[in-house]
Amino acid sequence: MTNKKNKHQHMKSIIKVVILLFSISIFSQVEKIEPPFWWSNMKNPELQLVVYGNNIAKYDVSISDNIKIINVRKTENPNYQFITVSTENINPGNINITFSEKGKKIQTLAYEFKQRRENSSIRDGFDSSDAMYLIMPDRFANGNPNNDSTADTVEKADRTNPGGRHGGDIQGVIDHLDYINDLGFTSLWSTPLLEDNEPVYSYHTYAQSDLYKIDSRFGTNEDYKRLASEMHKRDMKLIMDYVTNHWGSKHWMIQDLPTKDWIHYWENGEKGFQRSSYRMSTQFDSNASQHDSHACMDGWFDTTMPDMNQSNPLLLKYITQNAIWWIEYADLDGFRVDTYSYNDKEAIAKWTKAIMDEYPNFNIVGEVWMHNQSQMAYWQKDSKVGAIDSFNSNLPSVMDFTLHDAVTVMFNEEEKWSWDKGMIRAYDNFTNDFLYPDINNILVFAGNHDTNRINEIYKSDINKYKLVMSLIATVRGIPQFYYGDEIGMLGDKNAKGDGDIRRDFPGGWQGDASNAFTAQGRTDSQNSYYNFTKKLFNWRKSKDVIHNGKTMQYVPQNNVYVYFRYNDSERVMVVLNNSTDAQSLELSRFAEMIKESKYGQEILSGNEIEFNGTLKVEAKSSMIIELK
Amino acid sequence: MTNKKNKHQHMKSIIKVVILLFSISIFSQVEKIEPPFWWSNMKNPELQLVVYGNNIAKYDVSISDNIKIINVRKTENPNYQFITVSTENINPGNINITFSEKGKKIQTLAYEFKQRRENSSIRDGFDSSDAMYLIMPDRFANGNPNNDSTADTVEKADRTNPGGRHGGDIQGVIDHLDYINDLGFTSLWSTPLLEDNEPVYSYHTYAQSDLYKIDSRFGTNEDYKRLASEMHKRDMKLIMDYVTNHWGSKHWMIQDLPTKDWIHYWENGEKGFQRSSYRMSTQFDSNASQHDSHACMDGWFDTTMPDMNQSNPLLLKYITQNAIWWIEYADLDGFRVDTYSYNDKEAIAKWTKAIMDEYPNFNIVGEVWMHNQSQMAYWQKDSKVGAIDSFNSNLPSVMDFTLHDAVTVMFNEEEKWSWDKGMIRAYDNFTNDFLYPDINNILVFAGNHDTNRINEIYKSDINKYKLVMSLIATVRGIPQFYYGDEIGMLGDKNAKGDGDIRRDFPGGWQGDASNAFTAQGRTDSQNSYYNFTKKLFNWRKSKDVIHNGKTMQYVPQNNVYVYFRYNDSERVMVVLNNSTDAQSLELSRFAEMIKESKYGQEILSGNEIEFNGTLKVEAKSSMIIELK
Repeated sequence: MTNKKNKHQHMKSIIKVVILLFSISIFSQVEKIEPPFWWSNMKNPELQLVVYGNNIAKYDVSISDNIKIINVRKTENPNYQFITVSTENINPGNINITFSEKGKKIQTLAYEFKQRRENSSIRDGFDSSDAMYLIMPDRFANGNPNNDSTADTVEKADRTNPGGRHGGDIQGVIDHLDYINDLGFTSLWSTPLLEDNEPVYSYHTYAQSDLYKIDSRFGTNEDYKRLASEMHKRDMKLIMDYVTNHWGSKHWMIQDLPTKDWIHYWENGEKGFQRSSYRMSTQFDSNASQHDSHACMDGWFDTTMPDMNQSNPLLLKYITQNAIWWIEYADLDGFRVDTYSYNDKEAIAKWTKAIMDEYPNFNIVGEVWMHNQSQMAYWQKDSKVGAIDSFNSNLPSVMDFTLHDAVTVMFNEEEKWSWDKGMIRAYDNFTNDFLYPDINNILVFAGNHDTNRINEIYKSDINKYKLVMSLIATVRGIPQFYYGDEIGMLGDKNAKGDGDIRRDFPGGWQGDASNAFTAQGRTDSQNSYYNFTKKLFNWRKSKDVIHNGKTMQYVPQNNVYVYFRYNDSERVMVVLNNSTDAQSLELSRFAEMIKESKYGQEILSGNEIEFNGTLKVEAKSSMIIELK
Repeated sequence: MTNKKNKHQHMKSIIKVVILLFSISIFSQVEKIEPPFWWSNMKNPELQLVVYGNNIAKYDVSISDNIKIINVRKTENPNYQFITVSTENINPGNINITFSEKGKKIQTLAYEFKQRRENSSIRDGFDSSDAMYLIMPDRFANGNPNNDSTADTVEKADRTNPGGRHGGDIQGVIDHLDYINDLGFTSLWSTPLLEDNEPVYSYHTYAQSDLYKIDSRFGTNEDYKRLASEMHKRDMKLIMDYVTNHWGSKHWMIQDLPTKDWIHYWENGEKGFQRSSYRMSTQFDSNASQHDSHACMDGWFDTTMPDMNQSNPLLLKYITQNAIWWIEYADLDGFRVDTYSYNDKEAIAKWTKAIMDEYPNFNIVGEVWMHNQSQMAYWQKDSKVGAIDSFNSNLPSVMDFTLHDAVTVMFNEEEKWSWDKGMIRAYDNFTNDFLYPDINNILVFAGNHDTNRINEIYKSDINKYKLVMSLIATVRGIPQFYYGDEIGMLGDKNAKGDGDIRRDFPGGWQGDASNAFTAQGRTDSQNSYYNFTKKLFNWRKSKDVIHNGKTMQYVPQNNVYVYFRYNDSERVMVVLNNSTDAQSLELSRFAEMIKESKYGQEILSGNEIEFNGTLKVEAKSSMIIELK
């Protein structure tokens, strides 16, 4: 399939550029070393330094303080050296790296090893005691209007463009941490904040141009560190959205590829581009052709996003260290990994393992967007489904996309009896829980930045919203909530595109017509959504039985779904009546769980419930009852 | 949940009847011993004899020839004894069983041990080299009009009643074995033939009243043996439809229960009846309540079918021996087990293991009607999905119901591009093959006696029929074909009920207006269906690459699905064009499989195909190409 002639032409043009650059500088100089600094006393003592500069490969390297160089890798591009050193016994402080030619010193650079935070390696990641608030930072709040457009980035702010930069930033998030916390959320997943220097559609920031730098329109690296620190003050956790599968076309290494196989370069595509088939089934299909596997895993996610070749060990090491660098630098509590299942699966498993080896109590949730529980379970650490295929991802957490599939249709299915619709969809989803090796470490959600807004789907019917969130907040796993749902925000991806599901949060910008961050600024309707959400997720905060309890579910009858969360000391009964009639439930059916209890406290209404014979549930409503 | 008062009343009424019967006979007599005879030299030496007679439990039992009695179990019903003996070293011939009271002999019975057939224990079951023809014997052919109604059965023949007895029988099957064989099928699954003495709807014979007797309207036990023998002469295999989950209400043991827990008796139901919830998910759902598990597994399949309690070891032994008895007596080549996943799962696993231990090369396919591959894979022997739940069914073969789900809708989905419809459904099904421990031992089918007729679904569009059968005949697994599909028979279960999908095969009855068993008797249209079917399945007969080869599939494009079956010496390319336009396929995509081949033989048209650049496929058509 490969066209050798094109390949050679491409190489020739790289070499031509290199020669041109070289001829205008007398001495080659190091332009970049990455990581820019590191830490002493890391568990993994090996550190790979990427050194970049015109024709830098011709120099010999030596390092001070008897630092051991494990190996130096040069590639077909003379502008790179990959130097692997041992950091064993390195103390905090600087070392010197010297480049020389034929014994003559050309350049010496200081390279810093910092002191780690205390207990950095045993940091706890987010878990099922958390509820996660997801924002797109460009669209949440503009805390610093001075950085909406910046000198070092191409795309300038234009709030009138649904696909443009709107000016939201890290300061905006910091300013509203109390809002998020008050609402009941204990962790924050922000979509990527690293520099994305595409000329258009850079706001989503998934086409990253610098993996060591916060986009200047969001703030500085220091601002990001401050966000984590402000969150930790509030006992909240920060989750970084990490992208291993692709980089932006403007990344400096994409502009001057270290190796030809740094990315998946498609000879017949324009600038190496061929769109992925997105058929992730090729990752586990024992009948798959190499052709189809290649078309999915090595295809590009989009034209501006070259597909990275994680099976190149230099690249794999680069992104592994980069991820660890951000945990250590910013003091992170977790990763969400974009398009996890599009990566080279053996390589991404190594990436994940390397991070978890360094931070055994950390958490990483991968986007594994499939529609079949066994296929999702395949990707969770120690999966017995994965083991059938001799695969172990090492990934602690996955997302419950099949629950999302159910949640986004079932509350419109109002007929009382159905074999497989309405609440049966939720029930059916949980019947497959046994497939997951760690059922509590699964993200449950009604929407995210890539899906239709839940209140759009349910046409602003607050009763349906309440049913959705009653479920999301009480089932096993980690609830993940999309910003703005708490005020009933709308957004129609299918009809109007991504921009519509990523609208600006009202009040996030100076001069906004209303400010939904405050009770006074919200309409009555918005307050109804907000107050329900706040009550529900604040209640969840302290409920260990919801965080870590077991589940017992009952086959839905008349479109009413009942399940219990329970442990040795607590039981919570959840009733979701999805029918358009009030329903009366025979309680004897639930005797295994109700046991001797005579009373319960319904937490949404505050009412005490007496268990005698039957339980009445209003049409299209939920009850969450703590059993006494 | 149990109502003790009702329980006691039930017991009292049993005892009352027993006392009444006893008072009219001076001496108790053995009315039945089951199994009626056995064989010497079985692998499992233990044999459980059920002895039945009024108040028979009061007698002591002794056996001639120093036969060892392992134990004698009496139950709360004095009309039974369960006598377990060791058959080790028993020679063919009779032994005597003597019943005595206080030392006085009351009755002596001869019990026969037969000689086994040579190599009986190593008999081969059906496998993927077979293609299976499924009939409902009452509806296939009436070979013996004299037994349409019989003295010992209640329901009489009425061919005008779609739910009545029509008179088809074993002789009718024997008469048409050559027809079935000529059509390309090598094995026969007949729905049950044992006596079903219900007053109505007895024709389907799933409510069996005697497990050791062929229904007299189908013929005799000897006829059934003769069917097997006639099949073996033709190198064909006979598969018995075995029902472990329920018996008919008229079974003599149901009429006089050996133990109260012989069946699942629902105290609040009429005559112990409560319909199953049919929620088989409770079999593996780690969140299931006992209440729901009970409601599925212990509920009845229908009012006339008491749900058997396989967890009662006496019953389990009874149905295990009965199954082995039929294999040994009739010389069977396999079982199809009805409603396999409704049984007590630990018990049915033991049942299955006991049979497979006795006949290690036998085959058993279970009806596991689910809509999710991991849930079906759960039930196959040595399943790693089952192992997650610490379960091993020991069941060699399951049915590919998810493929059936796809096959019955996808050929109506004609749009060229779709993410998940049309041929993508087939592709998606096979992406989950890795979940099955034995992918070749799976039944693939377009319909059976419980589903809508495939030609009804596709409204007599023969092009769609050809696409369906091209798939069924060439994918991994064992194709199973439903009688009458080969002449385009229609039947609409949803609109007209079960009787409509179980119409009489035209020509099976003397005086039928037409005889579709012969070319002359078939219409032109029927001959088109027939001839295609015959060509396809006769071609399959000798193709090891189809029987045992590997599969490589390609993501469908433009609603065209391409896959290869291959082994070291052969390759077959199957192309299914489900779009309404002719399609031209770039062959370079399939280079991994086409390799150096320049030509292929298309087996449906007989045309030689030259591989150069592209392959043209007509709209709504299939190609099956043997690569040269």
